[in-house]
Amino acid sequence: MYNADENDIRFAIRHVIGLETFTDLAPFADYDADICDAVLSEAAKLATEVIAPINQTGDAGSTWHSDGTVTTPPGYAEAFKALGDGGWTGIGTAEDYGGQNMPAILCAATREMWHSANMGLALCHLLTEGLIHALQTSASEDQKQTYVRPMAEGRWTGTMNLTESQAGTDLAAIRTQAVPEGDHYLISGQKIFITYGEHDMSENIVHLVLARTPDAPAGVKGISVFIVPKFLVNEDGSLGALNDVKCVSIEHKLGINGSPTAVLQYGENKGAIGYLVGAENQGLNIMFNMMNHARFGVGIQGLSIANRAYYQALAYAQERRQGTPIGGKEGDAIIHHPDVMRLLATMRAEIEAMRPLALYGATALDRGHLDAGESKSSWQTRAELMVPIIKGWMTERSFGIASDGVQVHGGMGFIEETGAAQHLRDARILTIYEGTTAIQANDLMFRKTLRDQGVAVRELIEDIRKDADKTLLTAVADAETVLDHILKGGLSTRDAAAISVPYLMLLGYLTGGWMALKNKRAAIAQQDAGTWDANFLKAKIAHADVYAAHSLPQVAALAQTILNGSNSIEAMDASWFDS
Amino acid sequence: MYNADENDIRFAIRHVIGLETFTDLAPFADYDADICDAVLSEAAKLATEVIAPINQTGDAGSTWHSDGTVTTPPGYAEAFKALGDGGWTGIGTAEDYGGQNMPAILCAATREMWHSANMGLALCHLLTEGLIHALQTSASEDQKQTYVRPMAEGRWTGTMNLTESQAGTDLAAIRTQAVPEGDHYLISGQKIFITYGEHDMSENIVHLVLARTPDAPAGVKGISVFIVPKFLVNEDGSLGALNDVKCVSIEHKLGINGSPTAVLQYGENKGAIGYLVGAENQGLNIMFNMMNHARFGVGIQGLSIANRAYYQALAYAQERRQGTPIGGKEGDAIIHHPDVMRLLATMRAEIEAMRPLALYGATALDRGHLDAGESKSSWQTRAELMVPIIKGWMTERSFGIASDGVQVHGGMGFIEETGAAQHLRDARILTIYEGTTAIQANDLMFRKTLRDQGVAVRELIEDIRKDADKTLLTAVADAETVLDHILKGGLSTRDAAAISVPYLMLLGYLTGGWMALKNKRAAIAQQDAGTWDANFLKAKIAHADVYAAHSLPQVAALAQTILNGSNSIEAMDASWFDS
Repeated sequence: MYNADENDIRFAIRHVIGLETFTDLAPFADYDADICDAVLSEAAKLATEVIAPINQTGDAGSTWHSDGTVTTPPGYAEAFKALGDGGWTGIGTAEDYGGQNMPAILCAATREMWHSANMGLALCHLLTEGLIHALQTSASEDQKQTYVRPMAEGRWTGTMNLTESQAGTDLAAIRTQAVPEGDHYLISGQKIFITYGEHDMSENIVHLVLARTPDAPAGVKGISVFIVPKFLVNEDGSLGALNDVKCVSIEHKLGINGSPTAVLQYGENKGAIGYLVGAENQGLNIMFNMMNHARFGVGIQGLSIANRAYYQALAYAQERRQGTPIGGKEGDAIIHHPDVMRLLATMRAEIEAMRPLALYGATALDRGHLDAGESKSSWQTRAELMVPIIKGWMTERSFGIASDGVQVHGGMGFIEETGAAQHLRDARILTIYEGTTAIQANDLMFRKTLRDQGVAVRELIEDIRKDADKTLLTAVADAETVLDHILKGGLSTRDAAAISVPYLMLLGYLTGGWMALKNKRAAIAQQDAGTWDANFLKAKIAHADVYAAHSLPQVAALAQTILNGSNSIEAMDASWFDS
Repeated sequence: MYNADENDIRFAIRHVIGLETFTDLAPFADYDADICDAVLSEAAKLATEVIAPINQTGDAGSTWHSDGTVTTPPGYAEAFKALGDGGWTGIGTAEDYGGQNMPAILCAATREMWHSANMGLALCHLLTEGLIHALQTSASEDQKQTYVRPMAEGRWTGTMNLTESQAGTDLAAIRTQAVPEGDHYLISGQKIFITYGEHDMSENIVHLVLARTPDAPAGVKGISVFIVPKFLVNEDGSLGALNDVKCVSIEHKLGINGSPTAVLQYGENKGAIGYLVGAENQGLNIMFNMMNHARFGVGIQGLSIANRAYYQALAYAQERRQGTPIGGKEGDAIIHHPDVMRLLATMRAEIEAMRPLALYGATALDRGHLDAGESKSSWQTRAELMVPIIKGWMTERSFGIASDGVQVHGGMGFIEETGAAQHLRDARILTIYEGTTAIQANDLMFRKTLRDQGVAVRELIEDIRKDADKTLLTAVADAETVLDHILKGGLSTRDAAAISVPYLMLLGYLTGGWMALKNKRAAIAQQDAGTWDANFLKAKIAHADVYAAHSLPQVAALAQTILNGSNSIEAMDASWFDS
């Protein structure tokens, strides 16, 4: 029931986004369609044959033991090793540190496959990639050589240690201490929600830990970042003593159960040895530098889980017989029932809109980094605008799509053995971690819209307008009305915050509609070439129309909410609830 | 964290629906505000003190044993006994059979409390009520005296046995056999998804079983209904031998884990003894007679779980501190963050719309049954129209609301111990069982709209128009455009089916908006009287405005989908997916 959707990814890269969007960047000049195809085929094979088959068994969960060790589900360690051996862990890492330095679009496309195959497992890959990215950007050359290479080779893994029980969204409240001692610091404190904080899949674990030095200023200005390896590393790169960090429990979660979410206790004895990254009190900047990467990665997870839920539902709908569909014949599978087709088609329509949107975001990230001059800065602006939209909208929709996938199964969808419910449970984390949808929406509203007085958003809207057909033009006009409303000055900061999530969702549905239309035009353009299966192209055109009729009308509804909705929220008084 | 919301229910009955809507029916002439208040207070007390506290522990699930017995979670049996001892199981049962014959509005209001307190437990109550209703309507006097009274007294429980593995939505595919033998039949076959099919909370279990007699016609015309007691019943009402029915397993489900969902094997030995209800081959009619009651009951469950999720989230938002809210001060709880308030207010706004909608449905059911002349038949038509809307829309929204409840909790929402995730898991069954949303929507489209050429729906729309303000009038106009589109004759049956769920949701949001406006007017009218807490009334007015700005715009979006959305679905060809 797993399908990596390699063909659709290939179509999106080649005909919707276009190879030239990354091959004209110097480091990627040698990439062509064949290389991309080869990368995608290899990844799809690994995802399908090795990673996907252990997804459902992995849902039974990782196991914590009283000595602080954690056993991951059967097959996880082997599959993670296969990712490393295939070079996938270091796919985006610089060649200097053992990586392949591939374009972001291929990193995103293959990442989609790992997470749709098995999100519980692939989270370890995601965190390790994130840590590599953070260290490449901010660590010293010595730190990079010591820690990045073994991670890029898939021998070590990485974790992010931000959250404490009193400090979730609010990092200012972090209390973990880092006391200098010689060339290192002694770290003590408790961190929670640490994904793969302890496990049995790698030789070593590199924890990146936010903590405060003794004389640090209060709040976010006093946060520093430390590398705290599970095993200390000798001069020659071999492993030394166990550091003073212990997994004291793992969480009992709604989903992603294969992935152990650890409570880590640092410094139970004399203090865990940690190495400062960058300078003291620069922790928040370092974290911000990697945030785009991490949030974009979670947006991809939304696409992944939506895709997984879709193929699960499709397979069931093609197999299950129940009643004779209207206009059908006895023995027809339930896919012939109009509402089952509606569910599948609307799921698929949004997935086909999400996929090029994610790949467009990847290209924007690359060009914002590697392009030159004005184009570079304009792509950087676009990438920064797209990240909260991709993270927020795609994860919110992935949950709706996974729920529709359950619905296609009828009563069987509620039975855990069927597997559909797992995708729903797994999807539910996506709108929460790496910044909730509200955090993405605040970023979009305040940093990405109000700060530049709407310039970046208006440029996006103008780009969409150039491509729009009549239906999409209506949505463009709604978006413009909304932007004018936000910018006109009558909104208080609280007003703006109260409508920021609907605003994010509006821009999500709009940019999704843009991509759906691009899909349609690309499919029409390919119909004469004969390269693609005729039914594949017909389905793509139909799914674009489904998006226009079933998803795009949300833009108008959200516009109404944004124009009229802040007053009613702001009229509420929290004290009323005590009565 | 549980709140039965007794006060809000009282307000809805008294000022939004009105006592006179049921006290002017002869059987309920003696009911007044004090009696209603007393009933609600007693129920709220039981729900809060006895039933709600065992909800989260009950999520660990019922346990099946190899001898076919099932152990329910700790406290379940005592709580179910308390429901019986308090007379709640027979609250709607005729006095002749040991019941209290209370108006449907009080049955609905108290049912809301049981299910918000503990849906896993209350399902046993729901099924037993359903069986009482079925037998009161269709069984012989002797059968009623034998089986209804012990159920009304809470000593025995009831089950519905419809589904077989090949026969879910499609009852025509039922294969269970019933062979006549003397005054009874011998039943053999396997039934699945039998809620409380086996448990340890009552002296006996009354199974109502759909089966075929040997010479029955094929399809739905050949289905008969049988009473199959777990223990046979002696002439004097005492219990005799164990019948030939065995629980061979219980399901591993996404939610409602306290409730054992059984696979029942009938006739492993010589055949289970069953007693025919009504005449042979009348099974489907008998089932249809109770369907309104059962579906309405599930709609109430949607309200219940939404209410439970809301109070869970509210309590957390009032307690949890994280960051300083915009315009707030350090130490303010997260409820002061604008987006947390938006989540809570939109959840609450829909709950306050659902509640009077459910109570209105209850009154319509009663008046359709007990009223006289033209008024009776017009209420019956209204009740039949409201049932799929209440079942479909309220359960779909309950899942969205439960998901928003998780979101309010941030990372803690994903941790099972918090409790928010359970409500989400529990809610997920509601759009599936007792007819999926698609089944409700087909009922609404074909039986309740096209069959009378839209007369009943147009009457509903006219009633709403009479009450509407400017905002609601826009929604009324959209609904009318949609109705005209459906009736104008250009739609094929498949077209109509493909847009039936959006159509159901549109009428849900519209009738919800109607109720929200009624709430607002009732609250304004009460502001001078001083009977109600001033903040309660202010919050109610604000929630009606929140509904108008955040929920009602869905009517316009759904109208767009309905007007343009069937072609794109019908353009899809199932064979494309095989390419």
